[in-house]
Amino acid sequence: MTPNFANTPEPPYFVVVFTSQRKGADQDYEATAAAMATLAAAQPGYIGVESAHDANGFGITAVYFTDEESILAWRNNARHKDAQRLGRERWYEHYEVRVARVERAYSGPL
Amino acid sequence: MTPNFANTPEPPYFVVVFTSQRKGADQDYEATAAAMATLAAAQPGYIGVESAHDANGFGITAVYFTDEESILAWRNNARHKDAQRLGRERWYEHYEVRVARVERAYSGPL
Repeated sequence: MTPNFANTPEPPYFVVVFTSQRKGADQDYEATAAAMATLAAAQPGYIGVESAHDANGFGITAVYFTDEESILAWRNNARHKDAQRLGRERWYEHYEVRVARVERAYSGPL
Repeated sequence: MTPNFANTPEPPYFVVVFTSQRKGADQDYEATAAAMATLAAAQPGYIGVESAHDANGFGITAVYFTDEESILAWRNNARHKDAQRLGRERWYEHYEVRVARVERAYSGPL
């Protein structure tokens, strides 16, 4: 298994699916995204993350948490809120956030 | 909003998060993936799809459905099962499938 995959437990757990289209190149984005990834990983209830972005700035990030309360706490983290504001103002043309409860999971090839 | 985004309704609805690492180039993959996207869109309960893949063959696809029964029916679709077998045998180094109930959703920038 490559390091790109999150090591998730048996369901149930939660996922935040963040789908986004970036406006274009912005040097600050990479540094902030890396800082947020590190900060997220230190939050209570954090399980792991998976992220894929194409060459046109469209991407999907799935962040896994043990419970919804941890997701709300992360959403309201002060440094994260600063990054969210930059995202709204500068980086993203559009984004969708979906918070979901993982009911079943399997992997392969088996 | 770009056509890369799925036009999802108010929650609750369901999402299949398919995270995958492909082995390498395979011409049959693209044709089958396109055929499966078309076939999926014709299934009862299908809402939409979002998909992002990086240049190294790592990708995340989120397929949205109205209900779990529709997801099971799609999983058991005969042509889809053929494609799943090809995926296991030829295309994927690893994949994770997570079926989740979307509880909350929001979009931006607002």
